[in-house]
Formats: sequence, structure tokens, C-alpha cells
Amino acid sequence: MLSKNQLKLVNSLRLHKYRQEHGLFIAEGVKLVNEALKSSFEIHQIFATPEWIDAGHLPDGRYLVDVVEITQAELEKISALSTPNQVLALVKIPSGIPVPDASGEWALLLDQIRDPGNLGTIIRTADWFGIDRIIAATSSVDIWNPKVVQASMGSVFRMPVHYTDIHAYLSGNLDRVPVYGTLLEGEDISGVKLGKDGIVVIGNESHGISDSVKPFITRKITIPAANAGSSGRAESLNASIATAILCYEIRRQCP
Amino acid sequence: MLSKNQLKLVNSLRLHKYRQEHGLFIAEGVKLVNEALKSSFEIHQIFATPEWIDAGHLPDGRYLVDVVEITQAELEKISALSTPNQVLALVKIPSGIPVPDASGEWALLLDQIRDPGNLGTIIRTADWFGIDRIIAATSSVDIWNPKVVQASMGSVFRMPVHYTDIHAYLSGNLDRVPVYGTLLEGEDISGVKLGKDGIVVIGNESHGISDSVKPFITRKITIPAANAGSSGRAESLNASIATAILCYEIRRQCP
Repeated sequence: MLSKNQLKLVNSLRLHKYRQEHGLFIAEGVKLVNEALKSSFEIHQIFATPEWIDAGHLPDGRYLVDVVEITQAELEKISALSTPNQVLALVKIPSGIPVPDASGEWALLLDQIRDPGNLGTIIRTADWFGIDRIIAATSSVDIWNPKVVQASMGSVFRMPVHYTDIHAYLSGNLDRVPVYGTLLEGEDISGVKLGKDGIVVIGNESHGISDSVKPFITRKITIPAANAGSSGRAESLNASIATAILCYEIRRQCP
Repeated sequence: MLSKNQLKLVNSLRLHKYRQEHGLFIAEGVKLVNEALKSSFEIHQIFATPEWIDAGHLPDGRYLVDVVEITQAELEKISALSTPNQVLALVKIPSGIPVPDASGEWALLLDQIRDPGNLGTIIRTADWFGIDRIIAATSSVDIWNPKVVQASMGSVFRMPVHYTDIHAYLSGNLDRVPVYGTLLEGEDISGVKLGKDGIVVIGNESHGISDSVKPFITRKITIPAANAGSSGRAESLNASIATAILCYEIRRQCP
């Protein structure tokens, strides 16, 4: 049974402020909760219908998880999904993991990504292509926002994401690895020779790369559009689409 | 001033049924309405604040458009945007344009794409990379859904999208062009030699390519993931992300 306090806690976690206060975030649905259980993340509590509990999803070594049995009606009260799916977990936000230097790895640096769907999709795509790490400006959308967690399809449990001072990160790595950024005057990405490591800067959805970040870019690149017909062309690509193409190109050149 | 009937008409167009009945769809905001005005689409009516009207957005040859001046409060009543932006246009749905055969062009064939945001992003991306045409199963989400129109960022006004019997289209083109489909057992797309034309089949977000469409695929391809680490990898890519990578690869090989 779901208590009033539990209901209040879960619903409060839709807001950044309460996620910070409680150090918890929400993962919903069978697939996502199973990804959480397989990961090294600590699970605070699971709310599940008898259907989920009876299916025996808890893996070995996870028997100590606190599982609260709830009804479908109670699940609907705490779920943000249009079709609530058996289970909702409260997961502990991992605390400050130190950011390693960028040598020998590929990192995406997010300069103020604002849309939760975009961030979730970027994490899922980076995970697919084996990007090592995501570095996010503290002003970017919160990775523990439920919409980010859902859109990542579980990749938040695998991909290291660090919120940090991106200027400090960039200046600390400038002499170690190339810093790529998509700018209109850049070189066609498919013709740029990519090596074994680098930082790829992804700009904000509307405003692109910040003026304060541009000076750190050592390799200007672009994703070329087809020639415009008589009626013109799309002016830009969506931020998660542009990121995906860069990740694909990294893996194509450096499998 | 906005009449009650106008208010009712605009709000009804959020639903497929009424878009079909009236043969109209909604485009909102300065950028999108300007794209509509620049296009060959017929504008039925524009609702605009004095700010938009005074800025002189109407191009030559478009003076006969019916512009209704409304207040900001009235705009908020008909707008679906979180920040209503000066103007909303009712645009005529173009009627059945014949589908040309696929020889000499690149077409994306959408096999039951369901998410409006995905469809809008696919249209925007296809426009950027100069894909010639989108063929959609009649069961795919409606291109004139306001969420699709907004997510396309105006590319719906440039990219030809045909809703048709995809099986008939595929069988009619089988001996003309290769038909590509992403399937797990496919060949790495970056190693596949692409020519001057082809059809690329994009499957549904959850279920992939339909069983009834699979037999038409003559070239099985895949977008390879990085090797899985100890904690695995993302299981799949978002449909609009996979489409973007295929479009990029087409333009990379056949600029």
C-alpha cells in the first residue's frame, strides 16, 4: 500500500529542488527499472504491482531492495507515463565522481542543452556509439529529470555524465586533446581526420555554442547540408541529430 | 477580433478528423508562418497581433491573404505554444499529388512512425540532407498534426510527403532502385556502396520494420554500435536518429 508520505515524496521528485534535497530520482517501467537493477546504482525503494513482483525481476544480490506492493490505481497516482507500466523505482543520485582528463577518450561537452528529450536522446545515442563520457554545463537540463531518464531508455545508468565548470574542463584539456565544435565556417566533418580522442562541443538548441566557449575550439567542423533548391533548405539540424552524426563519424573513423 | 466560430475552428484543427473535414492545418509563430508564406502553400487565414502586422511580413504577391487582427489574449486562446509568438496561420492541405517512381531519387519510406516529434524531426533532417521525397504508410502519424508541423521547423513546406499504399509503392519500384532497410543482421552502412537513388525503409519506433515490408528489402543494412562494455549498451537508436545517420551517409557518399 502507498502511504500519503510516499505519494508526496514521489511527486515532489518531478522537481529539481526536491531531487537535490532527497538525493533521489525516478525511473519508471519494466525496462528502465530492470536497467537500474542491473547497474551499479543504489535503489532506494521500488513501488510495484503484484504482476511485477510475481515475475521475479529482482536479480541475485539485489534482494535487500525495499519493494512496496501497490495497486494499479496507486501506480497511476505516482506515474507520469501515459500507460503506467507495473513499476516505479526511486534511485539514489550518485555523488560527485571526479572528472578524469580527456586523454585517450572521446567526450561530449554539452553547452547549455535545455530540452530534456534532447538530453535523453543524446545520452542514448552516445551510449550506442561508445562515447566515453558526457560533460555538461551546470546550466544544462538536469540528467535526473524524469523526462531525461525516460528518453535515455536506460542509458543514464551506463553513461557517465558530469556537471562541472566547462571552462575549467576545457582549459585543463586544451593541450591534451583536440576540441571540436560545429560552426558554420567549419570543415566538412566527413573529411576531417579524427584520432583516438577528443572533446566534441554541442551548442544550445537555439543559440548554438556560447561565445565564452568558442575560443576553446581548436577544430571547427560542420555537417554539410545538400545544396539548397529554389525553395531553400532547413536552416539547422536538431541538437540531438547533429550530435548523433558526430558520434557516428567518430565510430566510423575510429572503430 | 477573434469570433467564436474562428476560435472553435482553430481549436478543432488539433484533431485529425477536423483537419480532414476542413482541409486545413495550423502553423504557428513568426518563423513558421514566414516559411508558409514563402512556400507555394495556399494560406486560408492568418490571425496576428498588431506587432506582426506592423512588421510587414507579407511578401509581394501574398497581399490577398485574409489577415485577422487579434489581441495577445486572443492569441493565447488559440495557441498551443508555451510562448505564443505573434501569429497563427491556417494553411490549406495540398490535395493528392501523384507519387513519381523512385528512379533517380532518394526516398525515405516510413513504415508506421507514430511519434509526431519524430516525424517532424525526420522531415527537417531529410530536408537538410536533400532527400527528395518521403513516402508514408497511411497508418503513420499525420504530417499536418500541429506537433509535426512545429517540430519540422518549416520543412513540411518544402519536403514532399506522400501518404500512400507502401506495399504498392515498393512493388512498383522493386526493379528500379535498391530498397534499404536497417535490420540487425545487415551490413555496416558505412561500408555499403550507395548509388544515385534508392528507397530507405524506416521502421516503427517500438517494433521496427513490419513483417509485411521486410520481403521488399533488397539491401539489409545496419548502423553498428560500439562494442558493449561490461554493463552492455543501448539496445537501439531512436527512429529519427537512425534516419539522420542514413541521410548523412547518403549525402557523404553521393554529394
